[in-house]
Amino acid sequence: MQKQELGMNVDNTKAHKAPPARVAVLGAGGLGMAAAQMLSQKRSLQLVAIADKGGAAIDPTGLSVEDLLDAQKKHKTVGAAGIKTDDSIGAVIKHLGLIDGVFIALPNLDNNFVPSVVRRFADAKYSGVMVDALKRTTAVKNIFQLHKKLQQSRITYITGAGATPGLLTAAANLAAQSYSEIQSIDIEFGVGISNWEAYRATIKEDIAHLEGFNLEKVSTMTYEEILAELDRRDGILKLVNMEHADDILLEIAGTVSREKVHIGGVVDTRNPKKPVSTHVTVTGRTYDGFTSTHTFTLGDETTMAANVLGPAFGWLAKALQLHKRGIYGVFGSAEIMPKFAP
Amino acid sequence: MQKQELGMNVDNTKAHKAPPARVAVLGAGGLGMAAAQMLSQKRSLQLVAIADKGGAAIDPTGLSVEDLLDAQKKHKTVGAAGIKTDDSIGAVIKHLGLIDGVFIALPNLDNNFVPSVVRRFADAKYSGVMVDALKRTTAVKNIFQLHKKLQQSRITYITGAGATPGLLTAAANLAAQSYSEIQSIDIEFGVGISNWEAYRATIKEDIAHLEGFNLEKVSTMTYEEILAELDRRDGILKLVNMEHADDILLEIAGTVSREKVHIGGVVDTRNPKKPVSTHVTVTGRTYDGFTSTHTFTLGDETTMAANVLGPAFGWLAKALQLHKRGIYGVFGSAEIMPKFAP
Repeated sequence: MQKQELGMNVDNTKAHKAPPARVAVLGAGGLGMAAAQMLSQKRSLQLVAIADKGGAAIDPTGLSVEDLLDAQKKHKTVGAAGIKTDDSIGAVIKHLGLIDGVFIALPNLDNNFVPSVVRRFADAKYSGVMVDALKRTTAVKNIFQLHKKLQQSRITYITGAGATPGLLTAAANLAAQSYSEIQSIDIEFGVGISNWEAYRATIKEDIAHLEGFNLEKVSTMTYEEILAELDRRDGILKLVNMEHADDILLEIAGTVSREKVHIGGVVDTRNPKKPVSTHVTVTGRTYDGFTSTHTFTLGDETTMAANVLGPAFGWLAKALQLHKRGIYGVFGSAEIMPKFAP
Repeated sequence: MQKQELGMNVDNTKAHKAPPARVAVLGAGGLGMAAAQMLSQKRSLQLVAIADKGGAAIDPTGLSVEDLLDAQKKHKTVGAAGIKTDDSIGAVIKHLGLIDGVFIALPNLDNNFVPSVVRRFADAKYSGVMVDALKRTTAVKNIFQLHKKLQQSRITYITGAGATPGLLTAAANLAAQSYSEIQSIDIEFGVGISNWEAYRATIKEDIAHLEGFNLEKVSTMTYEEILAELDRRDGILKLVNMEHADDILLEIAGTVSREKVHIGGVVDTRNPKKPVSTHVTVTGRTYDGFTSTHTFTLGDETTMAANVLGPAFGWLAKALQLHKRGIYGVFGSAEIMPKFAP
């Protein structure tokens, strides 16, 4: 078999033997620590830095998840396994030369927070790849506005690269290809978690989508208030017509105008079993005049973390290939095929 | 919204207003003529050349499907609406300057035929994009062997860019991202056609996959022999463990080794209703230890032509973007996200 030397069409055998790409994870909540755990199992990617509110741990030879979990447990910050600091992002930025890729797993109650972090990396002349798992349309829109700036600093950035937006958005873009005209794209996700406290930031974001709530209101809610709200709903959050970036990502990919994209979901905060199977349907009219629906359904046994982080690192692996080819700027997850990262 | 000037991240509004890309279709059987029909409905792509055994029709201002159908009906070749010639590929190659993209819809009973046609384009210094909907592993492998040659002639080529391989292969690659380890990828397609004579080359290829048949044997079968074979099977062809390029495409994309990919299908040659819903399942183990299955299912109302040609032109549109960015060579459909071509 003829092997490809192109970045986008790589000799996989060689890729496995190449030294792993060095990854920083920003955020060490439920998602960030799950990312650390996933990275510990990968041959092609290695965790070299992680940051939370209280500090950062950085080791160019690779970090141990056990040490990080231990530091969090005993001292409430991964910084206990490294540097305790109020500016943990700044601590990571001091070691940019050690980092090939950044996965952003920061809580995002303010739509400008992640863009402001990305701007710091660009201003510090970082030239590598970055991937986020942002959810809201406004947040992703703010990232797209950094396109020229990131091109200048030679950063390859893929936004909305989680499960939804992300895996399901890309699947919707694929499914749309059978049709001449898209009538609607409907995403419904089911999430079942037994330990909602570990995903407090995510749950807060979900609550912000409910009627009578918004990001501002939610940001001031205490643990007890969240608990009371969950109690009132028997632990179940039903979300409809969410502000989710699947819409803008599919519009920017050129697939469909955003108003035809609808996102809803059901989150059970007291049961690991998913209340509904997460799926996306794409309904359209074919060139030969038929109306039909393609469906992409995720297996119930896959966790939110697996469906967010697996694709996120797949996009990070693809971004590394694009970066090597000199392709910089902001790309949406719906327009780029992720690459399986072993 | 910030607009992207990158080829891979295009301003869609502008793209719609740009003159359509000029497309040649090689082959004017069932698939080739369906391609002509689909192109007649697209704003971003325009049919300027089509070729069959008996000749070629070429018009830089666009061809009329009605004229082509008329020519085929009355004279059994699209050449009657253009040039009658024994070397219709040669006739198209004489007008390379008029062509931005080529869709190859040639019958492919010989695994070297399509590669030999592609080689002619490269030798003639064609620098544009080419897309095929080849099915068999060997045929796609032969195309990959042209990678360096096509890089030199600055051709951007996407192979296996139909439904399966193609749409379902890419969906499998996406679905695989949730897993750490892929256990199996299983594609089952259902095809229902009432007019099998129009897809004679495709049916012949299907028969070649049956026990007791091969490409050589099938290539000499007469119409009556095919008819008799279909009669013996009540018009239904059950195909298992087919030699289908989904396997090599997923291996080259770095997703899974080819022996874990299985392709089968059921073709009903007497009924437009699909005997089974076409779907792909991806079963794997997640980083957190669960085994699960993602499923991508095509709506029954979509025809084979819609599911092959829609994606094929989606990949052609994406290949045009890659070509503009100077990215040349052979790519597999599983590693490139198609772009919706309006």
